[in-house]
Amino acid sequence: MKKIITFGEVLMRLSPEGNKKFMQANLLEFYFGGTEVNVGISIANFGEKVKHISCVSNDFVGDTALSYIQKFGVSTSDIVRSPKPLGVYFLEVGAVMRPSSISYNRSHSSFSDITPKVVDWERILEKGKWIHWTGITPALSKGAYETLKAGLKIAKEKGISVSADPTYRNGLWKYGENAKDVLADLVGYSTIFIGGINEINEILETNYSYSNEDFIEASKKLMERFPSIEKVFDKIRTSINSSWHKIRARMWNGEEFRETVDFDITHIVDRIGTGDAFAAGLIYGLQKYDDFKSMEFASAACALKHTYEGDVNYAAVDEVNAILNGNISGRFNR
Amino acid sequence: MKKIITFGEVLMRLSPEGNKKFMQANLLEFYFGGTEVNVGISIANFGEKVKHISCVSNDFVGDTALSYIQKFGVSTSDIVRSPKPLGVYFLEVGAVMRPSSISYNRSHSSFSDITPKVVDWERILEKGKWIHWTGITPALSKGAYETLKAGLKIAKEKGISVSADPTYRNGLWKYGENAKDVLADLVGYSTIFIGGINEINEILETNYSYSNEDFIEASKKLMERFPSIEKVFDKIRTSINSSWHKIRARMWNGEEFRETVDFDITHIVDRIGTGDAFAAGLIYGLQKYDDFKSMEFASAACALKHTYEGDVNYAAVDEVNAILNGNISGRFNR
Amino acid sequence: MKKIITFGEVLMRLSPEGNKKFMQANLLEFYFGGTEVNVGISIANFGEKVKHISCVSNDFVGDTALSYIQKFGVSTSDIVRSPKPLGVYFLEVGAVMRPSSISYNRSHSSFSDITPKVVDWERILEKGKWIHWTGITPALSKGAYETLKAGLKIAKEKGISVSADPTYRNGLWKYGENAKDVLADLVGYSTIFIGGINEINEILETNYSYSNEDFIEASKKLMERFPSIEKVFDKIRTSINSSWHKIRARMWNGEEFRETVDFDITHIVDRIGTGDAFAAGLIYGLQKYDDFKSMEFASAACALKHTYEGDVNYAAVDEVNAILNGNISGRFNR
Amino acid sequence: MKKIITFGEVLMRLSPEGNKKFMQANLLEFYFGGTEVNVGISIANFGEKVKHISCVSNDFVGDTALSYIQKFGVSTSDIVRSPKPLGVYFLEVGAVMRPSSISYNRSHSSFSDITPKVVDWERILEKGKWIHWTGITPALSKGAYETLKAGLKIAKEKGISVSADPTYRNGLWKYGENAKDVLADLVGYSTIFIGGINEINEILETNYSYSNEDFIEASKKLMERFPSIEKVFDKIRTSINSSWHKIRARMWNGEEFRETVDFDITHIVDRIGTGDAFAAGLIYGLQKYDDFKSMEFASAACALKHTYEGDVNYAAVDEVNAILNGNISGRFNR
Amino acid sequence: MKKIITFGEVLMRLSPEGNKKFMQANLLEFYFGGTEVNVGISIANFGEKVKHISCVSNDFVGDTALSYIQKFGVSTSDIVRSPKPLGVYFLEVGAVMRPSSISYNRSHSSFSDITPKVVDWERILEKGKWIHWTGITPALSKGAYETLKAGLKIAKEKGISVSADPTYRNGLWKYGENAKDVLADLVGYSTIFIGGINEINEILETNYSYSNEDFIEASKKLMERFPSIEKVFDKIRTSINSSWHKIRARMWNGEEFRETVDFDITHIVDRIGTGDAFAAGLIYGLQKYDDFKSMEFASAACALKHTYEGDVNYAAVDEVNAILNGNISGRFNR
Amino acid sequence: MKKIITFGEVLMRLSPEGNKKFMQANLLEFYFGGTEVNVGISIANFGEKVKHISCVSNDFVGDTALSYIQKFGVSTSDIVRSPKPLGVYFLEVGAVMRPSSISYNRSHSSFSDITPKVVDWERILEKGKWIHWTGITPALSKGAYETLKAGLKIAKEKGISVSADPTYRNGLWKYGENAKDVLADLVGYSTIFIGGINEINEILETNYSYSNEDFIEASKKLMERFPSIEKVFDKIRTSINSSWHKIRARMWNGEEFRETVDFDITHIVDRIGTGDAFAAGLIYGLQKYDDFKSMEFASAACALKHTYEGDVNYAAVDEVNAILNGNISGRFNR
Repeated sequence: MKKIITFGEVLMRLSPEGNKKFMQANLLEFYFGGTEVNVGISIANFGEKVKHISCVSNDFVGDTALSYIQKFGVSTSDIVRSPKPLGVYFLEVGAVMRPSSISYNRSHSSFSDITPKVVDWERILEKGKWIHWTGITPALSKGAYETLKAGLKIAKEKGISVSADPTYRNGLWKYGENAKDVLADLVGYSTIFIGGINEINEILETNYSYSNEDFIEASKKLMERFPSIEKVFDKIRTSINSSWHKIRARMWNGEEFRETVDFDITHIVDRIGTGDAFAAGLIYGLQKYDDFKSMEFASAACALKHTYEGDVNYAAVDEVNAILNGNISGRFNR
Repeated sequence: MKKIITFGEVLMRLSPEGNKKFMQANLLEFYFGGTEVNVGISIANFGEKVKHISCVSNDFVGDTALSYIQKFGVSTSDIVRSPKPLGVYFLEVGAVMRPSSISYNRSHSSFSDITPKVVDWERILEKGKWIHWTGITPALSKGAYETLKAGLKIAKEKGISVSADPTYRNGLWKYGENAKDVLADLVGYSTIFIGGINEINEILETNYSYSNEDFIEASKKLMERFPSIEKVFDKIRTSINSSWHKIRARMWNGEEFRETVDFDITHIVDRIGTGDAFAAGLIYGLQKYDDFKSMEFASAACALKHTYEGDVNYAAVDEVNAILNGNISGRFNR
Repeated sequence: MKKIITFGEVLMRLSPEGNKKFMQANLLEFYFGGTEVNVGISIANFGEKVKHISCVSNDFVGDTALSYIQKFGVSTSDIVRSPKPLGVYFLEVGAVMRPSSISYNRSHSSFSDITPKVVDWERILEKGKWIHWTGITPALSKGAYETLKAGLKIAKEKGISVSADPTYRNGLWKYGENAKDVLADLVGYSTIFIGGINEINEILETNYSYSNEDFIEASKKLMERFPSIEKVFDKIRTSINSSWHKIRARMWNGEEFRETVDFDITHIVDRIGTGDAFAAGLIYGLQKYDDFKSMEFASAACALKHTYEGDVNYAAVDEVNAILNGNISGRFNR
Repeated sequence: MKKIITFGEVLMRLSPEGNKKFMQANLLEFYFGGTEVNVGISIANFGEKVKHISCVSNDFVGDTALSYIQKFGVSTSDIVRSPKPLGVYFLEVGAVMRPSSISYNRSHSSFSDITPKVVDWERILEKGKWIHWTGITPALSKGAYETLKAGLKIAKEKGISVSADPTYRNGLWKYGENAKDVLADLVGYSTIFIGGINEINEILETNYSYSNEDFIEASKKLMERFPSIEKVFDKIRTSINSSWHKIRARMWNGEEFRETVDFDITHIVDRIGTGDAFAAGLIYGLQKYDDFKSMEFASAACALKHTYEGDVNYAAVDEVNAILNGNISGRFNR
Repeated sequence: MKKIITFGEVLMRLSPEGNKKFMQANLLEFYFGGTEVNVGISIANFGEKVKHISCVSNDFVGDTALSYIQKFGVSTSDIVRSPKPLGVYFLEVGAVMRPSSISYNRSHSSFSDITPKVVDWERILEKGKWIHWTGITPALSKGAYETLKAGLKIAKEKGISVSADPTYRNGLWKYGENAKDVLADLVGYSTIFIGGINEINEILETNYSYSNEDFIEASKKLMERFPSIEKVFDKIRTSINSSWHKIRARMWNGEEFRETVDFDITHIVDRIGTGDAFAAGLIYGLQKYDDFKSMEFASAACALKHTYEGDVNYAAVDEVNAILNGNISGRFNR
Repeated sequence: MKKIITFGEVLMRLSPEGNKKFMQANLLEFYFGGTEVNVGISIANFGEKVKHISCVSNDFVGDTALSYIQKFGVSTSDIVRSPKPLGVYFLEVGAVMRPSSISYNRSHSSFSDITPKVVDWERILEKGKWIHWTGITPALSKGAYETLKAGLKIAKEKGISVSADPTYRNGLWKYGENAKDVLADLVGYSTIFIGGINEINEILETNYSYSNEDFIEASKKLMERFPSIEKVFDKIRTSINSSWHKIRARMWNGEEFRETVDFDITHIVDRIGTGDAFAAGLIYGLQKYDDFKSMEFASAACALKHTYEGDVNYAAVDEVNAILNGNISGRFNR
């Protein structure tokens, strides 16, 4: 079975239990995550073979990160090590009208040491069928950008699918490159665009509104500018407050516009990684289902992720499809 | 004061804290439960004298099960011991659209060792005024079925009330008897039927719908077939999702049909044992109140149980009646 | 910077985690609190200089109480010590239709030892700009009443603002004084009245209803009787159940009546101290904003407090104002 | 089977986990204990019928105390309730050269409300074969002293064995009676004296040294003064530091002096209640074994208690005897 | 790199934290273990490729067992699944003179379902260089015995090393075979014997003492009877009490007798799996070092295991060798 | 009261509970520490006024660090903030022959941003009577070195005592300066030298042995080279293993050599910060006692610190002196 490849930083997440603030706690729960590895693990939980590429610290924290990824059956054999520490983020979980707060310690982390030299893309992608990237990676360091670009080039040569989640986060991008140029450069190698109006406006320097009409227009413009892009998928979150959201999705695949109905997530357990669960659902779905069913599958996966603690989606394919079949009443699985 | 007798397996319940999956946890909360002992403990919490009959393991796990039951003042002096292990169930608690999952380890448990020889029903029921059974017990082993039947016979002779909660769970029933025949046999000894359309259809091999009209019709048919049955009570759960339910109840007592309004349980803490809380509320109520007030009391008890962690209902009579008196706004009891 | 002074008992709060009952637990979370120190800490979190006056036990529990208060930068240098134990309260947290229960162990606590002799109000208020009191303090002991009265007298002489939250709790008041007389006596020294119909009816021995018309009428009557009172603020809580409340506020400042819209608190984390957060918001606001904005700030602070575990409000001024600016969707602060 | 009766205060014990100080913790472990109920529970764990007499608070804390005692099968049916709070003690557990610290909150607890009127000794002792008291009880309040004395009188009339552990703790005794007089009064009703040189010197106002010779002399003097005393048992603790003790015992039974060898307790888990485990071992032993074997059993029980967390001894008779048979190497019981 | 193969049951271990008894706890720590998988994981931690063969439950408990094994990089791809539950054991951890207690729930577990048909030994051992078995496996079920025997036969044919740890546990062996015959049968396929006087006496039906002379004699006799055995290794534990042990080892390799000095384990953290750590150390060592150094490495690995919680040894090769180089003073690794 | 000033990095310490490895945990305990702030807090616990100077992150982690320090009454009003993250260290706690492991994430932390410009030493030292520094600070960054040097210069001018703990840790010192030169430079401003043979050999480039004779010789040489040094104190640790140490101290004060007896720390709770407790004991002692008593006080403080979890010493002066008075048997403080 050919593999799905993800590439990106692995971070340690540290947060007090429940809704406690750091000032109230003396214990922190920890998880490992990072947008791309979250996608990889979620896809592995759907039963696919997955390999994650990264650079982690050469200490017991890095060892623990690797064992965490292996636990899900994701291959870590091409993850390299660095004497720099693993990136860390601290999280205080909000509720109702209180937002969650995050503080990062990642700017000199082991991942920032990565360079094209230490990743043998040719060999890795030989056994690959899909590669996924996000806008976080090229924002972290020049080496990360170059390593990613090297991989995408080879993927393009090999005709491997490339999904792009070109999130733009302006607190990053400190090493000197221009975010728009870099993202545009990388989108040029991609076949599936996972993102909405914000990301398109960022890259095209346009001003589209959130309306469906504008979404279609924007997607068309994007596909004009980047002919490799075949489909655009957009996840839409409506927040009642920190504890209660609704999720739906829409798509333009060059031929038709479709949108899903809302999932009503009345009691959020953990919203981190829910976008990654959407991307993973899409990547899995597009290999099995038609575009609309893939998007439905991705939305249900995203909705389900809100019920799992930590960064990754534990749902199996059957569990996602049960939701799509209308089983949302929560009867016991015995 | 005469005692209420419950008879059935005591299980250890093991679940990660919060909504964690086993894969995420290294600690499990444990409780003891089992549908009949849950009923017994809940009735003891209403102030009645209760004795539970069972067979538990002859090790420190069984010791702990006994001490757990004694804690509520329920008599354990007729619980027998076996070298086989106590039954266990594992639980992953869902949220929103994620259902909870349960996995059992009970098929060769200490309870399956029980036989009529080791339970002195004559002496036990001498001091009894009510006995409660469920459809789980006769599903577990031939010995369990025979022991239960022996008890119900003597109860009938002594004119003791017999409440039946003839839940049919098709994952059980592996020892060779036909579920319908056995349940019908046992219902024939019972005076109060706690169950709905599903249970009646199962036993009568009918096809009634969930409508009130059909409920009345079905109840009448049931009482025709089993003349010992005096009243039928049915609890109806409407699930918005795993975290949000509504509960109401309806009854046919041979003379009149009544139904309660819905309780809106917006933030479920733990739904296990809520049906048992309903049964316990009924058994308690029918000794103090008229049928409708008993059913209201049972519904309020059931609703309250959703707010307690673990398998048993901790509510006292005053706390249940406070709900019925409209105090659902949650002001502090100081 | 001049200080805001709070005066009152510091209690240790002990409660099982989550919604557990004491019977289910073997661990208790502990916090320190008390209505006046909660107000003080919340104001300190808004960036003001605060000093709390109290009497705590002369053991490691009292040491811990002091270190807890210092953690927030609130001055403890005028807190005195007593060989009597610190007051304690036990809490079982309810959910949905189950109310929370509180049991106190405070009637012979260290705070009941306080007398006017051990508090040097003259020196303390020299650096003060505001003093806050509640109806709990004079209910606890004769010494507490006299000490409070001594402070208010000097505050009046010095022209320092005095806010009163004259909550009447009838389980207290055991030392012989008449609650109404005492509260009326102390309200006579106060400039800001934080309380509603219940408190006014209690003090004036009137029977006003909860309508806005009656609120205005009652406030006018109160200001007639106590000419020092300049403004009356009332927080109104609507409870759907123990887990879901709505909060709004109204005011009469002698000239105009205003009321805020409701905050919808769909998933309460901890409602203890939410009234104190309102008082703290008002005291802070009235020094910076106009009356209506102060009341809005106080309401938002109160709403936010429902999302923090423990007795005190951790919100900073910016976080409260973000709510007022409409940011209630719970996006991450990164 | 006739019962063993214990009488005394039930306290809630609160301590941070491990060796944490209160200043470092936000969680406290809780247990219930009290020297006499510890003795009662330990004897129940040896298989005897036990009834504890006390007065606990009429709230959920008192409910929890009762359910804790019932868990061990100890009868609570004659425990009375009071609106005063349950006594509490706070504990910081030391290690190596750091001593443990205890702070009490018991001086106005529910137990101090007890009076002879609320305890029906005549009925209770009708089914009793032994009553145990300690010097803590008469130190707490006049009512406690009088209630105890009333019980001992009736025990003497009925010829029931009375064991006395007349520990003198000088931080108590605040209600006005003279400790020596009261203890001497109560020892006069007792048959077994569990105590050493310190207690004898206290009561006889003598100055005996810790030598075996003096112990024999002192015991003789004690038995001269109190002819009801038949035997004196003394437990001797040698502390290397807070974490490492040695335990042995000696006795004078009017005829012979015996002493045991040391148990070496190299890694103490919890030393609270170890003296109570010794008393319980003696009371159990003296009904089954000769004096020396009883003392050995008591010493082994005491040594084993150091390995259990909390106030009570969980050891069964077989487990104690295994130690006496030399099984101290800690092989698994499978 | 060729693999080391281990074969045996995977159990879930459940124990209260610290030295608590089940009666005191409401949380249980869980680990997975089993003597053979413990050996496999420990060897993987030394850097070897390892594959474990077993049969686990087809539910989320079995999923979690697999993910636990994968975490260490041990291959689970040939582990089969069964609808029966995973075996469980309950543990209460003793201290000082209190022994630990274990209670098993394994007699109808998923592993008992294994048969030669479901394990493709030919393919699996093609890539194997060593296979390890223990006396637990053939004691569990006929299928387990036959599956093991089938594997050992093929291992013999392929000239793969076979290490035997033929522990005899008499609480098992319930399916009808004679333990001695079965163990002798399987030892006949083995090359390395890890066991001492007890095991040899059991198999040969002899009566050797624990002296070194008898150990040599017994080893010679064993090697006479089973010519495939090349070396005998024996680990000797001296228990001061449950918390303090000493460990040494001795060997007879057909040519020379050697023994190691004692490791003094003054504060045991967890002694479960320490024998497995010894076996793993030997298997690793015999591939790198001479016999004596292998035994020293194994002893140090065994000693180190006493400092890790759970069933498996986390020590890396460098950490074991550091001990052998005399670094036992516990300076920080920074 | 004049203040004692400490200057250095504040780190967050993260470690699994007990002896768990990161791979076994999903919760981490956290504390704040850092060698100099540990000294400051310990001195504050002795009752002195202390101010700590540092630079912490401008996020909720930094806020929490400040509140942690304030809890002990140490002034944080001159601690500056930086947008860089707070330094972190990860700890796995060993036992017996397993050493503890530490991994740092501090090389680009907020403290590395400190420069002489942001610390107003003139004002701060105006109210100071003592300043303490260690060899960690100048190893971290050029700015840290220069800031420290600026402070020591002004201290010298003002005649304030300067204690130096010039620990050399070779994993640090990455910014380009030569450790020996820098340490020698700073020792030149110091009056009390807290360090042993290793530190002296490092600075003087000598080769003294650990003998008392060499210690005296080395101290003399040190005082020759740095005439400002008045006294040299050396703490000597003898490790039996990770769990069991002995501690003693020796001194040369220019006139006499003295050494203390060993403290036997049989069950270490936490050894981090024990050297800091020694330094704090010395600094406190030298203001109250003669040199030898100061060293004894410091040794007892150091020994006691081994019994507290976390980085700081909680012992009060009375508790330290109790040890010196021979109270090491661990009787309860009631």
